[in-house]
Amino acid sequence: MIKIAVDLQGADRPQTELAEGAFRAVRDNEDLFLYLCGGRQELETCMKEQGFTSERIEFVDASQVITNSDDPAEAFKEKKDSSLIRGMQLCKDDPEIGGFVTCGPTGAIFVSALMLLGRIARVSPMLLVELSRPDGTPFCVVDCGANVDCRAEKLVDFARMGIAYMKAAGVSEPKVGLLSNGAEDGKGSAVVKSANKLLREQIPQFTGNVEGSGVFTGSADVIVCDGFSGNILLKTTEGAAKAAIAELRAMGVSGEAVDKLYAKYDHNIQGGAVLLGTKLPIIKGHGAAASQTVYNIIKAAYKLAVNRINEKIEREFTGA
Amino acid sequence: MIKIAVDLQGADRPQTELAEGAFRAVRDNEDLFLYLCGGRQELETCMKEQGFTSERIEFVDASQVITNSDDPAEAFKEKKDSSLIRGMQLCKDDPEIGGFVTCGPTGAIFVSALMLLGRIARVSPMLLVELSRPDGTPFCVVDCGANVDCRAEKLVDFARMGIAYMKAAGVSEPKVGLLSNGAEDGKGSAVVKSANKLLREQIPQFTGNVEGSGVFTGSADVIVCDGFSGNILLKTTEGAAKAAIAELRAMGVSGEAVDKLYAKYDHNIQGGAVLLGTKLPIIKGHGAAASQTVYNIIKAAYKLAVNRINEKIEREFTGA
Repeated sequence: MIKIAVDLQGADRPQTELAEGAFRAVRDNEDLFLYLCGGRQELETCMKEQGFTSERIEFVDASQVITNSDDPAEAFKEKKDSSLIRGMQLCKDDPEIGGFVTCGPTGAIFVSALMLLGRIARVSPMLLVELSRPDGTPFCVVDCGANVDCRAEKLVDFARMGIAYMKAAGVSEPKVGLLSNGAEDGKGSAVVKSANKLLREQIPQFTGNVEGSGVFTGSADVIVCDGFSGNILLKTTEGAAKAAIAELRAMGVSGEAVDKLYAKYDHNIQGGAVLLGTKLPIIKGHGAAASQTVYNIIKAAYKLAVNRINEKIEREFTGA
Repeated sequence: MIKIAVDLQGADRPQTELAEGAFRAVRDNEDLFLYLCGGRQELETCMKEQGFTSERIEFVDASQVITNSDDPAEAFKEKKDSSLIRGMQLCKDDPEIGGFVTCGPTGAIFVSALMLLGRIARVSPMLLVELSRPDGTPFCVVDCGANVDCRAEKLVDFARMGIAYMKAAGVSEPKVGLLSNGAEDGKGSAVVKSANKLLREQIPQFTGNVEGSGVFTGSADVIVCDGFSGNILLKTTEGAAKAAIAELRAMGVSGEAVDKLYAKYDHNIQGGAVLLGTKLPIIKGHGAAASQTVYNIIKAAYKLAVNRINEKIEREFTGA
């Protein structure tokens, strides 16, 4: 049985809506146990109204909510009874819990994860997002926004965590690419040029620089970049794909395939970013998450826990 | 009559193929005069074979070619008889010429433009690319790759040049956005945070930070960023849109609208970047340019010359 803690508050939509995704996840997977953190009474009522019961759900009551307008450090000090911090505390206390899921604000997630869970080795925690190419093969982007200004050494750490993640996802020999403004080794900012050298020295899976277009046409399983560039890459991907689809619709092309593709690129609905580098993997859904998002990211957290992602990360750093 | 100099060599395809686009441009616009720089004899033969003559074409003979594998600074010293340097020298000598068009290598273009034409004021020349939103409204990205590591002050210069360009394109009050990893003022790398402050102080048209997705959904006419981020934005736009279209095709959606959209995002065919900040606007087509590219970028150069882009840039810097 895999145990996951789920924070149902701090997102744009009400906890009862997000809880539906959690109920469905438990219904679909007999090996899954969920701690649902939020306003217990309302959640219990909601569950009763749906005529759903499960011994694999336990509620963790919280009277406070951390939102995007809270200062992360202050929220951590002042809102100990929030669903985010209650859930994170539970993860700290119970070593059987294999992952934490939340759609709360990124800053507060980072602060509480660092304070309560701590880091693996001396690693800078970062946000990983998985995307896929037209042929369906997945690749991941590290970092997607946690570390905005980075030294080159950090990018090597991101590469190692990305490799561990792709191994956990079933890719036996993940290839690593470095995001740059040119495919040649000499191209890039000063930091990217140094990172290219370090990756060539330290990461045998490194295959060279990748441009923004090569991300979709190349073969790199792990795209390494700082959090600023990764965020630009991720959000431009969403924006450009949705713009292209909007243009098609304006030209009269529509139908199920078009709608399906639009939904795929709508990270608000689909998406989850994985916070790696703390002692438990944390999946963060978008603040605009719907119940389907919660369903998807609980499934992703389950998979990471089953595949022991954090053991794989430690192995990448110790070389064991 | 607008005079434009066109370098037909240094791209992937032969000069005779690219020349066809130039012939067509002259045929379609009676106000256009072209200096075509390349191997004169071959170009003249090609023109004769097509049964085309025009008093508005003059050939500039060049015996050398600068390619992507040349070192820019060395090429400038060693290849004085290349079509690129011959053309640039002509632009320097003849003040009647209103623009320069080339599909040659970026580095060599920059070096020869700086050495022969010189800069406007103390500006760092940069590459501008024009894109459009789903509703067809254009916006520009500055810088797209010329200045990889930038101080915040440079980003303000890019904003001014972008404003001048959009004014020349007919937008009377261009809005300026700063590319960042979050829409709030406090988001961004250290340089971006400083640039946000400078833009707030110095550029009345500045409307705040823009994310990679907001570029397509927002209303900023000028997207300001360093050349590294701009290159990631530009190439990811191309890659993601083409990936989305490839996925649609795989789902059986095809037809003229789909093909048209693909061509729009295929910058190799469409695209030209505008080098602004030197004493003459230079339009640079992709190395993989086809004759249609040359046709398009000559048209763009004509428009910039008619609209006196460089006078508008000087005005943005002097406040006149």
